[in-house]
Amino acid sequence: MSIVPQLTLEELNQVDAWWRANNYLTVGQIYLKSNPLLERPLEFDDIKPRLLGHWGTSPGLAFIYAHLNRLVKHTDQDIIYITGPGHGGPALVSASYLEGTYTECFPKVTKDTAGLTKLFRQFSAPGGIPSHASVTTPGSIHEGGELGYALSHAFGAVFDNPDLIAVSVVGDGEAETGPLEGSWKSISFLNPEHDGAVLPILHLNGGKIASPTVLSRKPQHEVEAYFRGHGYEPIFVEGNELPWMHERFSDALADAYTRIREIQDAARNGDWDGTRPVWPMIVLRTPKGWTGPHLVNGKVYEGTWRAHQVPLSGMKTDEKQLRLLENWMRSYRPEELFNADGTITDIVAANNPSGEKRISGNPHANGGLLTKDLVLRDLDNYAVEVTPETRATKRVESTRTLGAIMRDIYEDNPTNFRLFCPDETNSNRIGAVLEVSDRAFMERTDLIDEKLSNSGRVMEVLSEHNSHGWLDGYNLTGRHGLFASYEAFGMVSASMTMQAGKWFQEANHLDWRAKTPSLNILLSSTCWRNDHNGFSHQAPELLNVVLNTNRDVARIYLPVDANTLAVTAEKIFSDRNKVNLVIQDKQPQMQYLSMDEAKEHVGRGYGIWEWAGSENLGEDKPHIVVATAGDVVTMEAVAAVEIVKTVLPELKIRFVNVVDLLTLYRPKDHPRGMSESDFTELFTDDVDVLFAFHGYAGTIHQLVHGRPDADRFRARGFKEEGTTTTPFDMVVRNEVSRYHLVMDILNNASFVPENGIKLYHWAERQLARHEAYIVEHLEDLPEVRDWELGSFETPDFSRPTSDTHVPRKPLPER
Amino acid sequence: MSIVPQLTLEELNQVDAWWRANNYLTVGQIYLKSNPLLERPLEFDDIKPRLLGHWGTSPGLAFIYAHLNRLVKHTDQDIIYITGPGHGGPALVSASYLEGTYTECFPKVTKDTAGLTKLFRQFSAPGGIPSHASVTTPGSIHEGGELGYALSHAFGAVFDNPDLIAVSVVGDGEAETGPLEGSWKSISFLNPEHDGAVLPILHLNGGKIASPTVLSRKPQHEVEAYFRGHGYEPIFVEGNELPWMHERFSDALADAYTRIREIQDAARNGDWDGTRPVWPMIVLRTPKGWTGPHLVNGKVYEGTWRAHQVPLSGMKTDEKQLRLLENWMRSYRPEELFNADGTITDIVAANNPSGEKRISGNPHANGGLLTKDLVLRDLDNYAVEVTPETRATKRVESTRTLGAIMRDIYEDNPTNFRLFCPDETNSNRIGAVLEVSDRAFMERTDLIDEKLSNSGRVMEVLSEHNSHGWLDGYNLTGRHGLFASYEAFGMVSASMTMQAGKWFQEANHLDWRAKTPSLNILLSSTCWRNDHNGFSHQAPELLNVVLNTNRDVARIYLPVDANTLAVTAEKIFSDRNKVNLVIQDKQPQMQYLSMDEAKEHVGRGYGIWEWAGSENLGEDKPHIVVATAGDVVTMEAVAAVEIVKTVLPELKIRFVNVVDLLTLYRPKDHPRGMSESDFTELFTDDVDVLFAFHGYAGTIHQLVHGRPDADRFRARGFKEEGTTTTPFDMVVRNEVSRYHLVMDILNNASFVPENGIKLYHWAERQLARHEAYIVEHLEDLPEVRDWELGSFETPDFSRPTSDTHVPRKPLPER
Repeated sequence: MSIVPQLTLEELNQVDAWWRANNYLTVGQIYLKSNPLLERPLEFDDIKPRLLGHWGTSPGLAFIYAHLNRLVKHTDQDIIYITGPGHGGPALVSASYLEGTYTECFPKVTKDTAGLTKLFRQFSAPGGIPSHASVTTPGSIHEGGELGYALSHAFGAVFDNPDLIAVSVVGDGEAETGPLEGSWKSISFLNPEHDGAVLPILHLNGGKIASPTVLSRKPQHEVEAYFRGHGYEPIFVEGNELPWMHERFSDALADAYTRIREIQDAARNGDWDGTRPVWPMIVLRTPKGWTGPHLVNGKVYEGTWRAHQVPLSGMKTDEKQLRLLENWMRSYRPEELFNADGTITDIVAANNPSGEKRISGNPHANGGLLTKDLVLRDLDNYAVEVTPETRATKRVESTRTLGAIMRDIYEDNPTNFRLFCPDETNSNRIGAVLEVSDRAFMERTDLIDEKLSNSGRVMEVLSEHNSHGWLDGYNLTGRHGLFASYEAFGMVSASMTMQAGKWFQEANHLDWRAKTPSLNILLSSTCWRNDHNGFSHQAPELLNVVLNTNRDVARIYLPVDANTLAVTAEKIFSDRNKVNLVIQDKQPQMQYLSMDEAKEHVGRGYGIWEWAGSENLGEDKPHIVVATAGDVVTMEAVAAVEIVKTVLPELKIRFVNVVDLLTLYRPKDHPRGMSESDFTELFTDDVDVLFAFHGYAGTIHQLVHGRPDADRFRARGFKEEGTTTTPFDMVVRNEVSRYHLVMDILNNASFVPENGIKLYHWAERQLARHEAYIVEHLEDLPEVRDWELGSFETPDFSRPTSDTHVPRKPLPER
Repeated sequence: MSIVPQLTLEELNQVDAWWRANNYLTVGQIYLKSNPLLERPLEFDDIKPRLLGHWGTSPGLAFIYAHLNRLVKHTDQDIIYITGPGHGGPALVSASYLEGTYTECFPKVTKDTAGLTKLFRQFSAPGGIPSHASVTTPGSIHEGGELGYALSHAFGAVFDNPDLIAVSVVGDGEAETGPLEGSWKSISFLNPEHDGAVLPILHLNGGKIASPTVLSRKPQHEVEAYFRGHGYEPIFVEGNELPWMHERFSDALADAYTRIREIQDAARNGDWDGTRPVWPMIVLRTPKGWTGPHLVNGKVYEGTWRAHQVPLSGMKTDEKQLRLLENWMRSYRPEELFNADGTITDIVAANNPSGEKRISGNPHANGGLLTKDLVLRDLDNYAVEVTPETRATKRVESTRTLGAIMRDIYEDNPTNFRLFCPDETNSNRIGAVLEVSDRAFMERTDLIDEKLSNSGRVMEVLSEHNSHGWLDGYNLTGRHGLFASYEAFGMVSASMTMQAGKWFQEANHLDWRAKTPSLNILLSSTCWRNDHNGFSHQAPELLNVVLNTNRDVARIYLPVDANTLAVTAEKIFSDRNKVNLVIQDKQPQMQYLSMDEAKEHVGRGYGIWEWAGSENLGEDKPHIVVATAGDVVTMEAVAAVEIVKTVLPELKIRFVNVVDLLTLYRPKDHPRGMSESDFTELFTDDVDVLFAFHGYAGTIHQLVHGRPDADRFRARGFKEEGTTTTPFDMVVRNEVSRYHLVMDILNNASFVPENGIKLYHWAERQLARHEAYIVEHLEDLPEVRDWELGSFETPDFSRPTSDTHVPRKPLPER
């Protein structure tokens, strides 16, 4: 039995008036620059000079919104509205204007005729607002530009938000995208007890830009089967007859809401067997461009793709077209909707909820208002002990520290943090979280399953799109999280990362948008250590995607060991409105810095590692600077410098490590950029710099451009040479191995002692031995330890040879 | 009635023997480095030092393959096998080895005991092969590393290949990804008359790396509904009992094949009503790690995620584990499968098809063997007339030329070319193809639809993943095509572009892989001209993705007008094994070069435009070089130089345009890189270069690094400043407008005449006027022409003012 009463005639009139008002404002936004209330007949000069915008999807969006308002009024339910259809912006802007939040956010757009004029003029205009629901739309946590994420954002919003319902409208264009199709299954990860609910509304209006869509033309029984297969109970509402459509949709919405509440009540009252509920969803078929011109110049517009954008044109010069537009607008009976001063009439206002229950004013859709800082324990709890004596001698899986930090975050912030990961939590060595939470899974579980239950809150789904989208929604409703992925497969959702960056950048310009937790991405299993998985798993490109994200938003961290990762974690989990990219491999790594040293190093973002170099700081300039950013290349560089300084102690080398990559930029290019004096203090202004870099070498050239004598920087990095091979062979193939770096140092240092040429030849021989080893290995597979990074040369260094010296101490990688 | 006879006992024995042989070889690849035929009991030293690989999915893949072989033997059907499950490589390598193609491709891996030893050792070993079916796997057109594209690749392979069936195995991990879920709908675009067929086999073995999958745990009725909803008739085969599973799967395969042939025969014999057929697909549930160890150390392995990778370990030191492995291998009864010399026995060989019918030897899976050059008409047919007099004076939608070229390609190459595009063919102004082909659509069509039918061959689906994946499959089976997308949304499938580049790169190293047509991508609707769509549509990042693709594969073209685009098109449509990225906007553009000039310019890749500059070539060095790459920025730079040379004719400017972007690299960094002498001839070796670039400015810094005095290059480009605004405001916000460039020229030229400061202030004032115009526009929306790029300053140039001269001739953009 429905818990929402049937629509009364009075309510019908209110809902319909509100809808008409919304449609009227949408048409106004698309066409008019003046005469917003049609106080006089439209004139050519009232028409905007350039007609942009998308009418097609808007009336349907407004129709749904009008009925949701009534639902909220009856139930006081917290609802946010996710507008999937790309160009439905004007309907949502109109809704916010009718609800008053628009004027609250943008006081210049007043609730009167002048405000209406502004509202109309700014739409799709220079300096105005886009035609999508977007950052600038009050009540939106979703940008309608790039399609595919309406459902994953909605589900992310309701995880750990038991009292929230996200109504997510999926356009039939968007429904064709892979990411959207892959996100229906989100109900298989949603717990009705501690999560809220998503009500998906598939809005089939039949067309995208230029042609019909698959779902709109499939037989009904297939559409129904499709959603039942996904685990939903579809409720169909189809038609265009008024006012009957109001009653039918109102009933459908009441049914869906009742069903949601029944599921939730059962789960929360202990009356639930733990299986995945069959959730309701609505399939709404209405004509594209509903209530708009039906025939234009003899062609059917309403209900076809022709209504996608601007149905009428030429009304700046064609009186007939102008009258058609006027008739269309007057068909909404604006005199019933707006008072003479431009304010809305009581019958329209009667369909508005009030205060924070207004959908466009719900604080969940401006999540910064609800954001609480994470409770973070003291980093010293996670310190890996490193002393000057043990530095660079022991190997630790650094990402395990992050796992421990997140385990405690899960414990201390039980509804305010989640980890999202495509099935790789254990593989990425961050599985400590599973000590305090299972993986979420709502389908059948078996006795053999481990750490998997319907109450779990660690999110694993083999979909980067879902993982990323869920976190986006979780972030923008004010909660914290991390998306962890294999480095190469971070590119699967690269466009989502880029779009998230654009969201934050635009949000920074809106004072009414409270800042939300940052989008945090951990890339583990990096190109250098996907030696066994091969070339398809080797690609550090997401770093470049974030690099090109706007400077106010992008942050890139390349910690080198457990303690630098821990400090980085504290930083990103405390930050707001950023895209924080953290790249660190999961394999056992050398440890370089104590926790105190790490705090200082990461705090600054970079630093000189005196212990690794061979200069006496404060004396003369070094003969060369060796700089690094990234864990594996840092190990190679440390080893290379160790070799050189052992053999040629008079060659003075400065060792620089950069964790916060964008500090390399000039301050005028990036807010994290280090000052010119800091830069020259670090790199001098004329000594050659050899830069061993985690990613593509060109990235470094891009970063240091414009610095004093930038030509002196020679970067080594990943150059798309990969295969299934040994870890050490990976650095050899990409010419960033310790031996390559030894040769580079000798090639570029301003002073090379006499024995330099011998050392150079020794390094060449090491590489030749390696080549031979790779060629011959199939005949005589070496022991595992010989496959490890950098252990290969050990035998040669353990005894003196004719042309090299014994190192003073064992090489770091032993 | 089935057209394949029932499995006989003799066949069952052959199929089973072949399957056991395959499984045996798979286990051998994962574990053994010697003693491949178990001629003596296994010893610790027979075990590989590092155990890598993925057992779980392999036996199921081999099972399917064994039965497909029997089907081919009965029907002579051309079949290729798409291996979705990421790590099923060893099963496919084993299959190819059993069929003999492996030895044909890799003669060192002989058909004897020595060859078996090599086969085992190379797997997941340094210098060896990856654990996925990949480029190195004979019969593969699909890399199993990044999941999601098994179906779209399969459908791409069979478009215009009426006699081919692509059997596509979808793992239940992959089935969770968005791109895969979005690709079931490919049947809505497949014509049974002129296309081949895809037989999807969903292989539900229940687990991914660490947990079960959604589809494997859903109730059966939901799985069935899901596929019926997509338009398939699912055939379920479930179990693990032998030999009965052979009979059941054999029947299922025969049913599916019969159904496919019935559909095709009907369509091809005129007995078809034109509606989308209900295609068969198979859901195969077998235990993960089927036939492997059931219990290990008291834990269930077979049938669970624990069997995903390597089920046994410690057998290098633990006698008990070693015996378990030996028993496991002996359970396949190798003595029945291999002769004493290591060759396969007759009963195994009996299940192999022969010659090109072998699935691993089918030429469709080595598509270069079938590749035919496209018939291309003479470019002069498409020439846009440009003379020195009309240069830079008229606007043309350049991409329409590409549309015309493709229209003729469609006509002249009726089964060898397709355009793939997410619903934007007309929007991108390449709609001329629709004059000769409809859009493909197999669902219901209505009277109001235009250029849409079940016989159409223009591929539009609102999914970049499908568009890209279809083209990948079409390319790798030897046919040509183009993927066209909005620039920003090219990033949606960026990882596919990256992976395609990796495929080509690896293919280049395999002499048996014949070269295939290139992956051609057109990005239209670029960042600069998505002024009306706003920030979400503004992102030139895919350029950087291709930039970081391997040098032997990546090509980036930035044509500036219709004729340079035409020449570029001829180039990319003739090339092989490349990723060709072409970026050009669809809006009306200035035309600069005649067809003959364009041929020379694009042929070289770059050139000096003497007409645009103000130097006298051959005399002294210019005072500054203005370089461009990209259409919109070229227009701004041409205008800027026009302004400067009009006012300050004594300031000598060289104008350089680069179409083939990667020519900027040094030859040692890229095969397209121009020589140092060409570089200095173009850019001198010390004159400052102002570079106006289409994409992110840092890209230019990266490209010219290492060139003589690279610090002198100052690049302007897109810097993630965007919104809904005017085209001209876009170039202003990103500081690459003509006025910015005028100021840059004056700031950086080695000589500035006396009036330079006046011109500088004039340019500043123009920008100030623009700012004011943007701020004020809401009060007084200007006419459309004032929104166009660069027309804003016209009034000031039409009459002399106190501090500037009248230009000699109208500015280009008038």
